[in-house]
Amino acid sequence: MTKRGGQASTKPPSGTRDFLPDDVLRRRYVVGVVESVYEQYGFAPIETPAFENLSTLLGKYGEEGDKLLFRLLLRGEALREALGAAEGEVGQADLADLGLRYDLTVPLARVVAQYSALPRFFKRYQIQPVWRADRPGRGRYREFYQCDVDIVGTDSLTAEAEVCAAVVQVLERLGFSELSLRINHRGLLRGMIGRAGIDEAMEQSALVALDKLDKLGADGVTRELAERGVSERAARTLLDLTAGGEEGTGEGSADKLAHLESELSSDPGASALRDVRELWDLLGATPAGKYARFSPELARGLSYYTGPIFEIGVEDLAGSLGGGGRYDELVGMFGKRAVPAVGCSLGLERILLVMHERGMYPPLSAGPQVMVCWFGVAPARALEIGHALRAQGLKVEVYPQQAKLGKQLQYADDPGVRAPLAAIVGEDELERGELTLKHLASGAQQRVALSRAGDLARDWLDSPPSAG
Amino acid sequence: MTKRGGQASTKPPSGTRDFLPDDVLRRRYVVGVVESVYEQYGFAPIETPAFENLSTLLGKYGEEGDKLLFRLLLRGEALREALGAAEGEVGQADLADLGLRYDLTVPLARVVAQYSALPRFFKRYQIQPVWRADRPGRGRYREFYQCDVDIVGTDSLTAEAEVCAAVVQVLERLGFSELSLRINHRGLLRGMIGRAGIDEAMEQSALVALDKLDKLGADGVTRELAERGVSERAARTLLDLTAGGEEGTGEGSADKLAHLESELSSDPGASALRDVRELWDLLGATPAGKYARFSPELARGLSYYTGPIFEIGVEDLAGSLGGGGRYDELVGMFGKRAVPAVGCSLGLERILLVMHERGMYPPLSAGPQVMVCWFGVAPARALEIGHALRAQGLKVEVYPQQAKLGKQLQYADDPGVRAPLAAIVGEDELERGELTLKHLASGAQQRVALSRAGDLARDWLDSPPSAG
Repeated sequence: MTKRGGQASTKPPSGTRDFLPDDVLRRRYVVGVVESVYEQYGFAPIETPAFENLSTLLGKYGEEGDKLLFRLLLRGEALREALGAAEGEVGQADLADLGLRYDLTVPLARVVAQYSALPRFFKRYQIQPVWRADRPGRGRYREFYQCDVDIVGTDSLTAEAEVCAAVVQVLERLGFSELSLRINHRGLLRGMIGRAGIDEAMEQSALVALDKLDKLGADGVTRELAERGVSERAARTLLDLTAGGEEGTGEGSADKLAHLESELSSDPGASALRDVRELWDLLGATPAGKYARFSPELARGLSYYTGPIFEIGVEDLAGSLGGGGRYDELVGMFGKRAVPAVGCSLGLERILLVMHERGMYPPLSAGPQVMVCWFGVAPARALEIGHALRAQGLKVEVYPQQAKLGKQLQYADDPGVRAPLAAIVGEDELERGELTLKHLASGAQQRVALSRAGDLARDWLDSPPSAG
Repeated sequence: MTKRGGQASTKPPSGTRDFLPDDVLRRRYVVGVVESVYEQYGFAPIETPAFENLSTLLGKYGEEGDKLLFRLLLRGEALREALGAAEGEVGQADLADLGLRYDLTVPLARVVAQYSALPRFFKRYQIQPVWRADRPGRGRYREFYQCDVDIVGTDSLTAEAEVCAAVVQVLERLGFSELSLRINHRGLLRGMIGRAGIDEAMEQSALVALDKLDKLGADGVTRELAERGVSERAARTLLDLTAGGEEGTGEGSADKLAHLESELSSDPGASALRDVRELWDLLGATPAGKYARFSPELARGLSYYTGPIFEIGVEDLAGSLGGGGRYDELVGMFGKRAVPAVGCSLGLERILLVMHERGMYPPLSAGPQVMVCWFGVAPARALEIGHALRAQGLKVEVYPQQAKLGKQLQYADDPGVRAPLAAIVGEDELERGELTLKHLASGAQQRVALSRAGDLARDWLDSPPSAG
């Protein structure tokens, strides 16, 4: 055991965080709401390993994604061989066999390809951390949680409508209003790119540029498209297509749709527009309908999307709280058969950040309800009292060592403890099978039989007594 | 997006597992019991990142532990530099900066050193996965969950008693009986090793051998000690010391204690024996007392223990379900001040395995309570019915696409879905604002107003109707 004398940093690694009890409570509160709404929609939970074989992850997220994978160094003999093999020619591809999970969608696709006994329409949710070796920044972490909900096994657009409705209801239940659910379609983007005369091979690259419209504006995107080799004329046509018609949810979206229908009469654009119309109608039958907004400029970065894509946010807040889309070809990359799928992911960290800033949490508390404070009795007797109170259903901490009563009571009230009640046990109480229950905020206190202490404590926790 | 044509394996990486819905339910059930008991004892939850700086992890677990760390490959420029630096001399130490969490104790020690505002007696629990690059085997995984409970900030043995009582009550609550809580003390082991004439520098090595007594027997341990350079005579003295007195919980343990007290009259053995006596008395005041058993041969592998150590198991089951001990020097390795601490960890995987083999789970179910089956109506209407039933508090899946009613009902009953009820909606039902609720197991069905369907569904879920 090497002694390091405290020189090593005790901060969590760059881009990661420790969650102390109050943090964990807030995270659990939100995750609890997510789980309960997802389950109301008939989704069932799965979990997958933190790391995957690198071959599972590589080539699924686009070039950017591959770069951001955390890779696990080979171990033992395999590492020695890799280092010995090619003189001076060793690269990261040779040194790692596993990578940390980058999202929850690729693991789901692998799971669907692996287990043949899954139901035909597999409705799963998954709430786990993912890791990306991104440059850390405000609200951008290297370890963060995603809350995914997916329907695998149908190309029916009811699946899109259901996953959108589920995430909308999660956010409503958490207290968000003024939501905005932006809808687009990869086939439509492909159609617009073709109509603008941009080469098919440039599609992915053009999408990455278009995805920055929010951030860079039309001029910025035109510049970025130019850097990627798209002529100014083609760029302008593409941007005109996405910008046609009036902004807005109801009429505005219909107007944009009609505009594009007049511009794109052949596939893939035309059939994508029919999908969007149908999805529009279906969303109208769900709680998501009133927030839907047709956004032909929405691109979303991940390369595996094939059909409708969506992003959910709050009107007066930059950036999104989640998003998703249809990915009909991803499962087929792992298995023998293609399986259609669609899903949506909520980003836990951003939801928590906004809820914190806006004071959207209900009161939450961890820690004990009762602190057993004892003096003049053996510590074993204090432990017995603690056990008896727990058996009456209370959350109980026993002050761990000999100390003056005042010090113990003060500790019960410590900001990190905040026990609302103290159970005081001295020699006299012990002899009579009693204790003195004290309500710390009001100062009220009452001698009570040990067997009745649970009831009195619950009374006081429900409605605090007035000063005694 | 590279097409891999299904050649890549779709299994989870070696030593890891996917958890499908039924697995997740069982895990959640157990974790829920652990959390609720730990909270009854006044512990509050924390969470830490999946990876730590390697310097945080190295040198804390003994040599074996260091070898089993999963290391994260350096990224970008740092990796290029490392590979370019020393010609042919690159080792794993140069290629990684981060390592996956090996246990939850070292991260806790780092957290305690980092945050000065924690309560003086920090009672935290933590339930998260850890990773070890061990050879996978039956019940031995590379990713597994630990359920830790620790009290930091006091050297009072009440802390030992409380963590032992908490894990005992978890196991009782899960339905385990015939528990065995083995107790020993690192100081006592040091005393016995000294008394046997084994060099102090060999202590850690001797402990590793002694820890295998269960598996190898006395002869095996003697051989292993010999391989580590301990004379046969010293080995025999050590084993005689641990084996003195009669086996057993009450009288047996007292007998063993008395035997050792007569053999070890100087420190560290003598004061360790006083600790054991005191802890014995304290445990007697808790639910853990009746299972306690003094086990002077118990060593436990981890190098950071300094005082009492313990291991909990079931009498008729080889191996343990958890264990822990006091580690008064670990926090001081990170911070400026030494902080005493004691904790216990339950191994989730082994608990789950035994509960599975012994059929100890209550009935658990995921997935929808009601499947909306629809025909002759627009899919948007089916989504509306689904929404209305969810608003009445039910877990609802809407069959996602057009299909014959029989097929939809059959699917509702699919082993992967097991919806107990179907809500059948045709044109006629829709017109009248009704639906036909069908109880799939009994075949009972009843036409009911949509607004009353929730109540009827709950009635049927509570007490299944007889065949209609």
